[in-house]
Amino acid sequence: MFNNFTFYNPVKIIFGKNTIAQLPKNIPANARIMLTYGGGSILKNGVYEQVKEALKGYDIVDFGGIEANPYYETLMKGVELAREAKVDFLLAVGGGSVLDGTKFMAAAIPSTEGDEWNNIVCGKAKYKTATPIGAVLTLPATGSEMNYYAVISNKGSGEKFGMGNPLLFPKFSILDPETTFSLPKRQVANGIADAFTHVMEQYMTYALNAEIQDRFAESILKSLIEIAPKTLNEPTDYESRANLMWAATVALNGWIGVGVPQDWATHQIGHELTALHGIDHGRTLAVVLPHLMRYKSDSKKEKMIQYAKRVWDLNGTDEELVEAAIQKTIDFYESIGIPTKASHYDIGMETVNEVKKRFTDRKSSFGENADIDGEAAAAILLSSIA
Amino acid sequence: MFNNFTFYNPVKIIFGKNTIAQLPKNIPANARIMLTYGGGSILKNGVYEQVKEALKGYDIVDFGGIEANPYYETLMKGVELAREAKVDFLLAVGGGSVLDGTKFMAAAIPSTEGDEWNNIVCGKAKYKTATPIGAVLTLPATGSEMNYYAVISNKGSGEKFGMGNPLLFPKFSILDPETTFSLPKRQVANGIADAFTHVMEQYMTYALNAEIQDRFAESILKSLIEIAPKTLNEPTDYESRANLMWAATVALNGWIGVGVPQDWATHQIGHELTALHGIDHGRTLAVVLPHLMRYKSDSKKEKMIQYAKRVWDLNGTDEELVEAAIQKTIDFYESIGIPTKASHYDIGMETVNEVKKRFTDRKSSFGENADIDGEAAAAILLSSIA
Repeated sequence: MFNNFTFYNPVKIIFGKNTIAQLPKNIPANARIMLTYGGGSILKNGVYEQVKEALKGYDIVDFGGIEANPYYETLMKGVELAREAKVDFLLAVGGGSVLDGTKFMAAAIPSTEGDEWNNIVCGKAKYKTATPIGAVLTLPATGSEMNYYAVISNKGSGEKFGMGNPLLFPKFSILDPETTFSLPKRQVANGIADAFTHVMEQYMTYALNAEIQDRFAESILKSLIEIAPKTLNEPTDYESRANLMWAATVALNGWIGVGVPQDWATHQIGHELTALHGIDHGRTLAVVLPHLMRYKSDSKKEKMIQYAKRVWDLNGTDEELVEAAIQKTIDFYESIGIPTKASHYDIGMETVNEVKKRFTDRKSSFGENADIDGEAAAAILLSSIA
Repeated sequence: MFNNFTFYNPVKIIFGKNTIAQLPKNIPANARIMLTYGGGSILKNGVYEQVKEALKGYDIVDFGGIEANPYYETLMKGVELAREAKVDFLLAVGGGSVLDGTKFMAAAIPSTEGDEWNNIVCGKAKYKTATPIGAVLTLPATGSEMNYYAVISNKGSGEKFGMGNPLLFPKFSILDPETTFSLPKRQVANGIADAFTHVMEQYMTYALNAEIQDRFAESILKSLIEIAPKTLNEPTDYESRANLMWAATVALNGWIGVGVPQDWATHQIGHELTALHGIDHGRTLAVVLPHLMRYKSDSKKEKMIQYAKRVWDLNGTDEELVEAAIQKTIDFYESIGIPTKASHYDIGMETVNEVKKRFTDRKSSFGENADIDGEAAAAILLSSIA
């Protein structure tokens, strides 16, 4: 039985070729804009120039240098700059890290209570206002362009946490697949792994007979499986890049998650691996998910069989299909160049013990049945090392 | 190649059991509400009472009697009543006709230019404001609860036209599957036919390799095919009614239509059959679509083959699959009790000629290739009579 739900997503998506030119139609004429971006790839691939050209006549302050898995410490510099310059619109140009970092800044800029890490990221205070955000997405991966979530890291404490608030929905997001042509193959593969895993977090749970949600999730998985080899090998093929970009957005904009149980333990464990080892986010997911599936193959059994049949077109006994579900997931990550063994990333017992301790200290309980604690996370990581 | 698109849909969906109680959280406390409804089924099934109970303390004016395929003439009475009572919120309680009629009223109430048929329905004037709308949906069918379209009929002229404006998005729609338990079987079947055809209008066109959009469309079709017999035979089975209700909403909320060609000729021809013969909207679609598919089987060939394979799990030669696509569509409508032959509804040559004349006089050209004119519509209807 499908659960009660509320769905609301007011993000305007502007998708396609040459859509950056539509920026002025979507930002108030008198806005004082802070343009936020990352390590500078947009300076090399022409996107920065396109944005500046479209925004001629606006007051713009630049804030570059937002890193992957953006640090609170970095972002607070942007917050101070924005407060000084009396910025009233944030335009994020980049991938999920730039968008996530900008969402944090949007909440922090108008805040007057101080201690933004505890109040905003850890949710100790309720905020009732945020600076409006728009986005130009240049990396299909996180879905941040059409939701109100962000993941922020703390250099000082070595922590990485998710945050979210409907105030942080972008007003609009521009998705031009051509801006992704120059991405390194590794980043595209990481993005595919991220999108794939977002779907699995909302799908690979206990069964519920939510027909539309299940089939939509399977649609995205099948599309990613079909698109992945094409778009990795032909980065300038518009069609497959457009399909990938849209697939990654709908993987985490709420459409497939309404009324169904969600897991997210893979992300929680993965965040710790990034925090401790600096491993790319998409790669940490590949290290965890197949081993989580094996560990929870009793409670996820029905869905694993459905996935093997509908997504991978397999037949067999229940036991064979459960095993195939795990193996096909491993094969998929490996096929896009992402190793699925923790040992490949030099993750050893020290990390297993540290993750166990952190989850235990925080009294964490993740997963659709809230039964993934420090003990369970350690068992999953051990299976990934073995 | 997948086309550029803009997507925006800010409707808040509140889905599930006992959700009517959430009305006061979603309507401003000092609103002067006009409650709009249809022929009175909500008075018999308890929905009217639930709504009134939830809205205790609000100022409410009732406007009942909105008919199926709502007439402009009826709706203008509601517009006058709302203007007199200084109504500032419209709450539509019913199916697609009540919602569509309420959307027209929302645009007409603040209008000061007169001639609301030409200005608002036929789009001769641009309106910049509309009275806000909320909805309690009691019939899964039209998708009107999550889009800004409406179809309005004119008793005087015998016309039936579509209209739309982003100002007419409902602020919220409440979907409680239990409110649909008491629907007559015929109405549920009509609703299934309507939702099925909405998907086909956005899917059965020329092929484009829009992976997500195609697979989402196929997901809804497969779900409707699976749900239909269950929900027709067991009207109080919550699970299948919930699945049907959500399927009908996502069939026409924009999710499957972004960036892809759309047909809508079946609806255009069907509207004329309702206007001329008073045939239920859902039934007119069944009379047209299979014959349109046959008539356009050259330009739709690739998609018909994909549909036969992916939705109906068939194999065969291209010719066999094209034929099977038509036959399976006929079988589906017939399986839910809806005849697909125009002759069954006493549609004869007089109607064929009148439809041909109307489309020719209006210089109409429908379909994804804008090549369905009066001549083509006549040929399609003739094949349906044969």
